Amino acid sequence: MPLLSFLRVFGRILRTSVGIFLVGVLVQALVPSVAALGEAPWVVDVPQPGSMALVENKLPVGVWVEEGEWAGVRRVADDLRSDFERVTGVRASAVQAGQWPKTLVAIGTVGRSAWVEQLAASGKISLDTLRGRWEANLITVVEAPWPGVERALVIIGSDKRGAIYGTYTLAEQLGVSPWYYWADVPVRSREAAYALPGQHGEPEPRVKYRGIFLNDEAPALTGWARAKFGGMNQQFYTRLFELLLRLKANYLWPAMWANAFNEDDPLNPQLADEYGIVMGTSHHEPMLRAHQEWKTHGRGAWDYAHNGEVLRQFWREGIRRNRAYESIITLGMRGDGDEPMSESENVALLERIVADQRQILKEEMGTVEQVPQLWALYKEVQGYYERGMRVPDDVTLLWCDDNWGNIRRLPTPEEENRKGGAGVYYHFDYVGGPRSYKWLNTVPLSKIWEQMNHALERKADRIWIVNVGDLKLLEFPTEYFLNLARRPERWPYEKIDDYVRAWAQRDFAGHETENLVELAKGYVRLNGYRKPEMMAPETLSLVNYQEADRLVGEYWSWVKQAEAVRGRLPQSYHPAFFQFIEFPTRASAQVWALLTASARTQLYARQGRTSTNDWANEVERLFAEDAAWTRAYNEDLLQGKWRHIADQTHLGYVIWQQPPRNVMPPLQRVQVPAVAEVGFAVEGSPHAWPTDDIGQAAPTLPPIDRINDQKPWVEFFRRGSQPARVRLQALDSWLQLSETSLELTAEDRRVRVAVDWTQAPSDVAIGRIQVDGDGLGRRVIRVPVDGRLPVPDALGGAVEGDRVVVMEANAFVEAVPPPGGSWRVLPDFGRHGTGVTVWPVTLPSAEPATPQGALRYRFFSRSQGSAKISLILAPSLDFQPGKLRLGVSLDGGAIEVLEVQPKNERAWEKAVADAAQILTVSRTLASPGWHDLTVWAIDPGPVLLRVEVDLGGRRPSYLGPPSSKRFEGQRPNPLSP
Amino acid sequence: MPLLSFLRVFGRILRTSVGIFLVGVLVQALVPSVAALGEAPWVVDVPQPGSMALVENKLPVGVWVEEGEWAGVRRVADDLRSDFERVTGVRASAVQAGQWPKTLVAIGTVGRSAWVEQLAASGKISLDTLRGRWEANLITVVEAPWPGVERALVIIGSDKRGAIYGTYTLAEQLGVSPWYYWADVPVRSREAAYALPGQHGEPEPRVKYRGIFLNDEAPALTGWARAKFGGMNQQFYTRLFELLLRLKANYLWPAMWANAFNEDDPLNPQLADEYGIVMGTSHHEPMLRAHQEWKTHGRGAWDYAHNGEVLRQFWREGIRRNRAYESIITLGMRGDGDEPMSESENVALLERIVADQRQILKEEMGTVEQVPQLWALYKEVQGYYERGMRVPDDVTLLWCDDNWGNIRRLPTPEEENRKGGAGVYYHFDYVGGPRSYKWLNTVPLSKIWEQMNHALERKADRIWIVNVGDLKLLEFPTEYFLNLARRPERWPYEKIDDYVRAWAQRDFAGHETENLVELAKGYVRLNGYRKPEMMAPETLSLVNYQEADRLVGEYWSWVKQAEAVRGRLPQSYHPAFFQFIEFPTRASAQVWALLTASARTQLYARQGRTSTNDWANEVERLFAEDAAWTRAYNEDLLQGKWRHIADQTHLGYVIWQQPPRNVMPPLQRVQVPAVAEVGFAVEGSPHAWPTDDIGQAAPTLPPIDRINDQKPWVEFFRRGSQPARVRLQALDSWLQLSETSLELTAEDRRVRVAVDWTQAPSDVAIGRIQVDGDGLGRRVIRVPVDGRLPVPDALGGAVEGDRVVVMEANAFVEAVPPPGGSWRVLPDFGRHGTGVTVWPVTLPSAEPATPQGALRYRFFSRSQGSAKISLILAPSLDFQPGKLRLGVSLDGGAIEVLEVQPKNERAWEKAVADAAQILTVSRTLASPGWHDLTVWAIDPGPVLLRVEVDLGGRRPSYLGPPSSKRFEGQRPNPLSP
Repeated sequence: MPLLSFLRVFGRILRTSVGIFLVGVLVQALVPSVAALGEAPWVVDVPQPGSMALVENKLPVGVWVEEGEWAGVRRVADDLRSDFERVTGVRASAVQAGQWPKTLVAIGTVGRSAWVEQLAASGKISLDTLRGRWEANLITVVEAPWPGVERALVIIGSDKRGAIYGTYTLAEQLGVSPWYYWADVPVRSREAAYALPGQHGEPEPRVKYRGIFLNDEAPALTGWARAKFGGMNQQFYTRLFELLLRLKANYLWPAMWANAFNEDDPLNPQLADEYGIVMGTSHHEPMLRAHQEWKTHGRGAWDYAHNGEVLRQFWREGIRRNRAYESIITLGMRGDGDEPMSESENVALLERIVADQRQILKEEMGTVEQVPQLWALYKEVQGYYERGMRVPDDVTLLWCDDNWGNIRRLPTPEEENRKGGAGVYYHFDYVGGPRSYKWLNTVPLSKIWEQMNHALERKADRIWIVNVGDLKLLEFPTEYFLNLARRPERWPYEKIDDYVRAWAQRDFAGHETENLVELAKGYVRLNGYRKPEMMAPETLSLVNYQEADRLVGEYWSWVKQAEAVRGRLPQSYHPAFFQFIEFPTRASAQVWALLTASARTQLYARQGRTSTNDWANEVERLFAEDAAWTRAYNEDLLQGKWRHIADQTHLGYVIWQQPPRNVMPPLQRVQVPAVAEVGFAVEGSPHAWPTDDIGQAAPTLPPIDRINDQKPWVEFFRRGSQPARVRLQALDSWLQLSETSLELTAEDRRVRVAVDWTQAPSDVAIGRIQVDGDGLGRRVIRVPVDGRLPVPDALGGAVEGDRVVVMEANAFVEAVPPPGGSWRVLPDFGRHGTGVTVWPVTLPSAEPATPQGALRYRFFSRSQGSAKISLILAPSLDFQPGKLRLGVSLDGGAIEVLEVQPKNERAWEKAVADAAQILTVSRTLASPGWHDLTVWAIDPGPVLLRVEVDLGGRRPSYLGPPSSKRFEGQRPNPLSP
Repeated sequence: MPLLSFLRVFGRILRTSVGIFLVGVLVQALVPSVAALGEAPWVVDVPQPGSMALVENKLPVGVWVEEGEWAGVRRVADDLRSDFERVTGVRASAVQAGQWPKTLVAIGTVGRSAWVEQLAASGKISLDTLRGRWEANLITVVEAPWPGVERALVIIGSDKRGAIYGTYTLAEQLGVSPWYYWADVPVRSREAAYALPGQHGEPEPRVKYRGIFLNDEAPALTGWARAKFGGMNQQFYTRLFELLLRLKANYLWPAMWANAFNEDDPLNPQLADEYGIVMGTSHHEPMLRAHQEWKTHGRGAWDYAHNGEVLRQFWREGIRRNRAYESIITLGMRGDGDEPMSESENVALLERIVADQRQILKEEMGTVEQVPQLWALYKEVQGYYERGMRVPDDVTLLWCDDNWGNIRRLPTPEEENRKGGAGVYYHFDYVGGPRSYKWLNTVPLSKIWEQMNHALERKADRIWIVNVGDLKLLEFPTEYFLNLARRPERWPYEKIDDYVRAWAQRDFAGHETENLVELAKGYVRLNGYRKPEMMAPETLSLVNYQEADRLVGEYWSWVKQAEAVRGRLPQSYHPAFFQFIEFPTRASAQVWALLTASARTQLYARQGRTSTNDWANEVERLFAEDAAWTRAYNEDLLQGKWRHIADQTHLGYVIWQQPPRNVMPPLQRVQVPAVAEVGFAVEGSPHAWPTDDIGQAAPTLPPIDRINDQKPWVEFFRRGSQPARVRLQALDSWLQLSETSLELTAEDRRVRVAVDWTQAPSDVAIGRIQVDGDGLGRRVIRVPVDGRLPVPDALGGAVEGDRVVVMEANAFVEAVPPPGGSWRVLPDFGRHGTGVTVWPVTLPSAEPATPQGALRYRFFSRSQGSAKISLILAPSLDFQPGKLRLGVSLDGGAIEVLEVQPKNERAWEKAVADAAQILTVSRTLASPGWHDLTVWAIDPGPVLLRVEVDLGGRRPSYLGPPSSKRFEGQRPNPLSP
């Protein structure tokens, strides 16, 4: 561990733990103790005053649970005994009533285990924090709880899941990661373990129902489950239930695409209830009946107007079948197979359907108000709501995102007080337009936080459910989502890195923590710029702004870092590292590299480069590597434990739906004659020289100016198979060349052009570079240069270069807070690295005509005339209807109010694909010189990522030009705190 | 030789020769004597009454030419002596004056050789057909011409070239093809040869100046000349002059792109004059000065308004340098490097330029009226003419085509009487938009005839010059063009095949004649559908109308036929066969096959076919084959004699300009799992089944109807690497399947679906095919069937199928001739096989409101409502300004007048690229049933190729649906005679 990283970790521990105990821990091992995420470690390796031995001499204490406890609590006690075995090699004994050992772990539930009330009555514990609470627990060491027992670690739940979660908290503290099975995180081997005194339990979770939706589960999860368990049967689901409970989730929409949870294995629902999982069905499967069940049993059409009797009977059977179990009933109806109903199936019909469904609930369950129900306002269903459809107040309104992580709607202040409350259905995986994404993790934690924070602030906290596809490869955001739902107060935006750090420390026992933090974010950040499924050979520019080179290079640097980290990790951590980091990093990088190599073959073929064929070989190689890494996950890893789990196709998307097989992007080749011939290309142009002279403009580099000080390139390549030579000479003394003589044998070679500003003219000029090369003759390359300095300015700001000005969102020169609020900079957010948004997110909207809060950007233009001003924003939606506006004005002119909400489906598709909503206004710059561009706060919600002013020079690219350099004024940049 | 072919040849000989001599010839050898194209053989192997021995006992006669003859005539006499050596192995002796042998060949010119007038004076010959004539000659055996000489074959030219051409006529009759050097046609070995009595000379040629333009000559011709001769020097040009004279051309625009004829080798112009070649410079190089010369010598701008003095001096030097030689002076001026001049350089300036140029001619040559001059109305220059610019009457107006073989303008009746007359500059090769074509022959003879016939009929017969690029690979159309210019009366449209036959007999000595006729037309016909440079992977449809299969298949059938013919040809003919037939056929076929294979990888990858990878390999293989065949021409053929001649790049065009290197079209691959899984596709759809079921329509075949009796296909393929099985079952007894059980191991398999009309319903129905396959489950394919018969009709006509009606141009039911003219069917014309046009082409235009001539097409529609009627025409231009119209009417409705002239440059580009100008009108069919579609003659010129009526069913494809089947009425189809 590098010193700096160590100090960072040490500092964190000091801040979050009690110093006195830490000394011992740190003396014992520099590796910090494993802890549940966000918790201080309270199971330590060395006895402390008041601590209780959980393991001593490799032997675990016994575990006690009353006969009459919930089956789920009895089961988790059993699980704890196994966890002790995982940690020590010795299974903990089940303490038998009356045969008390000196120390033990006791697990119970308020109102269910007699000893709990007895202990409270004895004054040894207080149940005040538990009574009447949902899923709370108390974990503490009690001295002499019962006669003959010296000490007990008691785990008391306010209810069944409270006890279960508490037990898994102990397991996690002992060193059993929730992912010990699902991501092969090594269990920490302990010879001794001691529970510290103090209260280790947890309060009620913030979000009542927190769950996942296994969806779009073929071919990966289905294939794996079939190979592993023979199907999605009770063996599969008990593994899943255990994971969910260890993650302290409580709610599940089961796999449904080609599966029927309740029918595939009749033990499934019974086991779910026993484990303590609240079952539901997806947004479009009402009344606990799977889509597949209708396929099997349905008679007639899925059409309530004409086939209502059959449907009611179908639903009634579902309710009757599951009425003994804990469920949330999905109400309403969509079309068959998760499609919209026809236009004719209108609001009135849907209201009747809901009324009839509730009548069935009443008849079958004896109550309706006591039954948790939800109405998912998914896609067109939200439109019914907006058009006036309502459901009874006790039904939870489940608002949805746009399937691409942008919440479409949240409760308005008036809607916040419904009895049934509100929730959110969110996506980490999706099948649909503009393109399905089902392969691996593409959603940065910062995005999840930014969106789900709105849900919390707008009181959509009754249910959170997230579509996790196959679950595997989405382990990381899934756990974060569930943590955020349970304890959001622990995880404010600025603690995202701490969250990742806590995960790294827990699952890799402190090895390489800081590197893991970077790696866990690295590939996802890039995938967040654009999902791999959306990447095409033409996405990134090969000729402008070094875009492809830079981004693919960034990806490979993560791959290299991952390789280095693996090399230093103990062997036992390799499988987990492979699953969490190495596979997704490498597999994602390969997609970008592959598509860029494909694009290169096309561009280079057109330019007649001999190297085209090397890149064609690279396309073939990377395509084979993609298959090899898939095989590595499916077959090589742990002798095929995860067979089929990486089966999802991900290369070759052309429509929204995935290709049946992974497809290699197009490659091209050239025929290479046995000659020595040189060609060259210049930055900013797809052309190459020489070519037939007709109509070919002289080669000209993008401009260089004194402030931005660009260093454009000329690239030389061969057009034959023979080695070839080039000589370069700057015809102007103030031009500098990184090379003046090249011998081309294999690779193409770039020469950088720079200006020596001490010598360069202080006005505009055209520099010239003379090139002589084999088969090339003599050519002159033009280099437009601007040596002028901007007019001095008190504030300073960005300076135009290459006829464009680019300012990242945090590059404002002044931030005027909106009344009652502030501007908040969100680091590590979005496709340009930083976001700026209005804070708090519940701040009332400003009057659009007279906004107060403003971000003032300042730039120097070298020309006047028309300018296109683009605000690049996160692709948010107006979750408060119509309230996603901001204003923009130039040089004190009128404020133009912009709606961030995409204008139509096509605009939305582009926004989510590009991870940016780009709003452009045209203005005229009255004169060259300094200009003020002001962005005005109207509604909270929009997150500004960057501002671009295009003065006619913006070149095609995905992410746009790099940030303009600043010409500093006399006072420092007043970034908001 | 098959019997039928023999009879055809025999019949031709009987028709064109004197029967009495033929008996001997035929007895001697069934192979007909070699003859100059279009001439009867008059040099035979066996003596005949009155014949003169040219070769006997392998010894040739001597050749006599006077000392004072034209140098060119003395040179050609020498050439003839060498030709005798080529034929016999013994060089003919040069007869010395006074040492007369008994027989000889005497060559002379009227007015130059004294013996000519003496012989005329003696009454042995008459010079009436020669005196005052241009390039005429007399060739005849004279008995006892001079004392001691028994017989002489005299070759007398009306002028220098008359004698030269006559001498080469003898050479050709002896068995020396004009192409003996330039295409390695074997010289016929003779032990004996006899000139038949009679007159064998030729009259004046129809077109006075007939020439070629070597242009766009790099890299192929330039590279070859450099390797062979060290450059485009006198060695190169004497070879070329000889060829031109053997082809009886007289005019040359020399290679100019990187060459300057008069400066590169100062002997060049002198030799040209000596040989008898009239030199010019191209349309944009005035005053005999090459573009390259200005590059070398020019001072200041190529701008007459500002640099006139320098330009005048530059031009004066050119005229002075070449004034002793026979030339045609190009007048006028274009911008530098064959680009338009700027807008400001207007008509008045150009008129001044021409006047000044003529002043220079007068000063340097003493006359201007006697100097042949031309003004090329190329591109924008034609616009100057249309805006009123004129040149003196003695200057020839050189009208031009659109660079794509469509003449833009021809003399109007008023313009036909200019003293300087008119000519045409035509293209077989072009550098420019929409795309350069410089590789190989793409212009069918039928197209050349159709266009150049307009030139003849409109009296544009003073100069014909054709851009032949590198000349090589365009040998065939070049000779045709020159023959048509010289003796158009010999080669009416219906004798195109005879022309090809004559060529085949001459250059392959009667071997495989009929096969050669087919082969020589075969690949060019297909290249005429679309030039290889314009072909893209997406051009041909893989799923509709079997388009790609059919066309690529047709190409390969020519390749197979060529291979078979080569196998039967004597070895000595292989090089010529390679150059004329085998290379261009194979190389063209490979382009189509390669691009289609590329398209297949893209479609099949999307469909998840395992066979995608086989097709990717095929792309690689064909790309390598392309290189291999290029190498075969450049390196393997005759030990590299034609090195570099096939260097032209031809694969990978993306803009108008050729790619610097040949580029392989994109290929894609798929990752193939080790499973047994079947997928299938159906005709008419790019989709494949199975796919994720969401939103996927049931597989449905294109419809089958009782008249068109389509037989659509279902194609089965593997999606894994394991063998897989399919079973098919027609669920309707009247559906027939070509296969009912398939074992898929390597190749994809098509199953044809047909209807048994004896069993099928007589109404519309949906047939069903049930498919069971590995990994496929059970699927049902729908087959829409229409069993209805049309209403009986007296005339009959085409019947709608698949919601479209297609009628080829000659499928009219009635042809009403225009007053004074007729409709002419042009077989073997255009991209649909036949054209129909108004005859004669000089017929006056009809009044558009009341045309008389009409082609009546008739079709049966099964529906009513909107129909798009498309007339597909040859891409002609309005060479008579504004007069390229025809009319169309439906069911006796109003006549709509259509302009065939493309509306703008974009439309023109599409028309020439597609080899079709498509005019579409929308109509409403009032009812189902029989309809009359009438095409009305207004102007001569348009050539109708086909008529399509789209009732909503036309599927994407390049050439469109196949012809609709006819439902015959009671009287025969009255095709025009």
